[in-house]
Amino acid sequence: MADKKKRKRAKDSQEEDLPFKSILESDEAILKLLKSYISTSLTAAGSSGASSSSSSKPLTLADLSLSSSCREVADLSLSSVQTEIETVIVQIARSILAGDGFSFSVPSRAASNQLYVPELDRIVLKDKSTLRPFASVSSVRKTTITTRILALIHQLCLRNIHVTKRDLFYTDVKLFQDQTQSDAVLDDVSCMLGCTRSSLNVIAAEKGVVVGRLIFSDNGDMIDCTKMGMGGKAIPPNIDRVGDMQSDAMFILLVEKDAAYIRLAEDRFYNRFPCIIVTAKGQPDVATRLFLRKMKMELKLPVLALVDSDPYGLKILSVYGCGSKNMSYDSANLTTPDIKWLGIRPSDLDKYKIPEQCRLPMTEQDIKTGKDMLEEDFVKKNPGWVEELNLMVKTKQKAEIQALSSFGFQYLSEVYLPLKLQQQDWL
Amino acid sequence: MADKKKRKRAKDSQEEDLPFKSILESDEAILKLLKSYISTSLTAAGSSGASSSSSSKPLTLADLSLSSSCREVADLSLSSVQTEIETVIVQIARSILAGDGFSFSVPSRAASNQLYVPELDRIVLKDKSTLRPFASVSSVRKTTITTRILALIHQLCLRNIHVTKRDLFYTDVKLFQDQTQSDAVLDDVSCMLGCTRSSLNVIAAEKGVVVGRLIFSDNGDMIDCTKMGMGGKAIPPNIDRVGDMQSDAMFILLVEKDAAYIRLAEDRFYNRFPCIIVTAKGQPDVATRLFLRKMKMELKLPVLALVDSDPYGLKILSVYGCGSKNMSYDSANLTTPDIKWLGIRPSDLDKYKIPEQCRLPMTEQDIKTGKDMLEEDFVKKNPGWVEELNLMVKTKQKAEIQALSSFGFQYLSEVYLPLKLQQQDWL
Repeated sequence: MADKKKRKRAKDSQEEDLPFKSILESDEAILKLLKSYISTSLTAAGSSGASSSSSSKPLTLADLSLSSSCREVADLSLSSVQTEIETVIVQIARSILAGDGFSFSVPSRAASNQLYVPELDRIVLKDKSTLRPFASVSSVRKTTITTRILALIHQLCLRNIHVTKRDLFYTDVKLFQDQTQSDAVLDDVSCMLGCTRSSLNVIAAEKGVVVGRLIFSDNGDMIDCTKMGMGGKAIPPNIDRVGDMQSDAMFILLVEKDAAYIRLAEDRFYNRFPCIIVTAKGQPDVATRLFLRKMKMELKLPVLALVDSDPYGLKILSVYGCGSKNMSYDSANLTTPDIKWLGIRPSDLDKYKIPEQCRLPMTEQDIKTGKDMLEEDFVKKNPGWVEELNLMVKTKQKAEIQALSSFGFQYLSEVYLPLKLQQQDWL
Repeated sequence: MADKKKRKRAKDSQEEDLPFKSILESDEAILKLLKSYISTSLTAAGSSGASSSSSSKPLTLADLSLSSSCREVADLSLSSVQTEIETVIVQIARSILAGDGFSFSVPSRAASNQLYVPELDRIVLKDKSTLRPFASVSSVRKTTITTRILALIHQLCLRNIHVTKRDLFYTDVKLFQDQTQSDAVLDDVSCMLGCTRSSLNVIAAEKGVVVGRLIFSDNGDMIDCTKMGMGGKAIPPNIDRVGDMQSDAMFILLVEKDAAYIRLAEDRFYNRFPCIIVTAKGQPDVATRLFLRKMKMELKLPVLALVDSDPYGLKILSVYGCGSKNMSYDSANLTTPDIKWLGIRPSDLDKYKIPEQCRLPMTEQDIKTGKDMLEEDFVKKNPGWVEELNLMVKTKQKAEIQALSSFGFQYLSEVYLPLKLQQQDWL
């Protein structure tokens, strides 16, 4: 008994000191606020019609009359991919039999052929294509590689299995020579066939984890993410075998890094405020991006992002939100619309009185990256983000999520996040 | 129907060509062989008494009369850690009140204080300690940091929560200045208190995953690893909340890399040959090492390792098996005895006729690393390993696990591994 009392006292005395703890309302009050926010934003989305990106049917290139001048890929079934490949090969055979040799028409993925479409808030490919003839010294190798990749993908379709890009490379090292070559042609083939890379059954190694109020099926097994302990569920590498998502969460919390994820998972934050917590542990990988998008689309929940207060935190947010230049042809399937920037925002540093010694000076490179991002369309369309980024570049200070630990290890889950939710403080 | 027939034919024709497929026996025959191997090795272990490392009670420093001259740490309960810290602090208070100031006695973790004990097949610390007085210009900072870390750990004990090393650093950036300083003192504190780092509730970010015939509890939730789809279960960062392990597996398959893990998980290899498949996705992290050891100790299953055929593959095997120099004080808790080297072994390259173009030439650095490893005790005690490593250094060739994909994407799960099991081909 004495021991228990001692523990309780130690805990209380520390908690009373926590800054801003006093203005925190009860969990019930915060939940009520959240509920009204969600129903308001759903109504707003409904009344504004097709232009809303948060919950009604999203805009497509066709809606903008861009489908002839821009190119995007779609998820195709395995049998459709198989048919597409067979169609290409039959055309080639005809061309050869007619004495014309053969060539592939490959959409260009160069930067000059990329376009940011503000209405979609995504990068897409323009319509330029290049011809890749077999009977040309400069392209014979690439044409051969393309043919080989088509044959390998056809094999994957027949067997209905998934492989990694590395596996693909090793099936014919002599021809591919270097993995960058087979990887590049793989992206070409996606564009040629008009399908996503995951439709080709070529997957990326996954590193993301998810925990919280979500039930889904992974390759036929039903997974309850409230019963995944502290480790969480590893996000499956193959999104096409993920389905049946159900949730009673009020929002999705997208966390940049591992340490913050562990804190929230151990504290079972999702039981206090019903939510789904997801992280890619740093740079967003394809599997996590696909998984986040699927959750957003099926569950229609707001996505709140918790990232470091530095240019790379915002960069990571942008990759989830509007895609990477590298895979712009697939942006419609990889990006999640309407992600809110919850924190850590540059203005939080003063607002939450983060001690000077927990802030880090930005390097020359950081500042340059920050200034470059101010020129990016995806930042410019959000005045609140511009303001925050300007503040960061001006103060030349950055901070990691962990900087909040200076107020105690559980400050993140016990004060910072509840207060953010209470004040609906996101941009 | 026609479609189905076509698919079947395509599959068959490819499978018939697979090298060594013809000498593969039926799954039932292989399982029977495995069963007899396991019962034989268990009997052998039983009859050889306390000296066996595979299944009976493992040797300790005390058994070797080394407990006074060598040092190891143990898992302590939270309340024991709390008591240990309080004891240290009371001693300090007495010393200060007596007018003597205070100092900590800290076990040295320098290389000169490390010892490989062949009987244990582990690296341990010798008994040298250094005094860290507060009243000395050269050690006042380190002594202050040590005191602060003790106070923080005491807090973790009271609240019963886990934090990362990064969190710990951020609680007092002004004092610690640099994370390497708080990390180093954290290891000092482990040694001082005689407990493992996980007993201090300071955890490493986890990246490992597990799938297959294993049921265990993670923070109170029961996890069935046969129902984790393709993504698998993320290995929990805090081993102290893992328990209740049950399994009907015949062996544990330790896989170095992601791609091979994905192949085996998708093919549900564990249903064909009952096993548990685990990977740290590259360099072994502390959470995966602790988890592997716990499985081995509780389930008493053979551990078979599938790593790249290069010096780093063997290095990774050695970290699982006998520890890293960095955390040698904790080797008893972090290492898994008696791991077998299944493949890819240098002799496999010729045996399985891996095509020349899938083998890579070793760099100067690779060869040097290989030669250095030939001098390591943990290699030398296993003549089979020495032979393999000599072959690698002589042929100057290395190969990744994925090199097997040159025979088809599923060669690993359909031929290579079953044949290895059939021939009990491990060292």
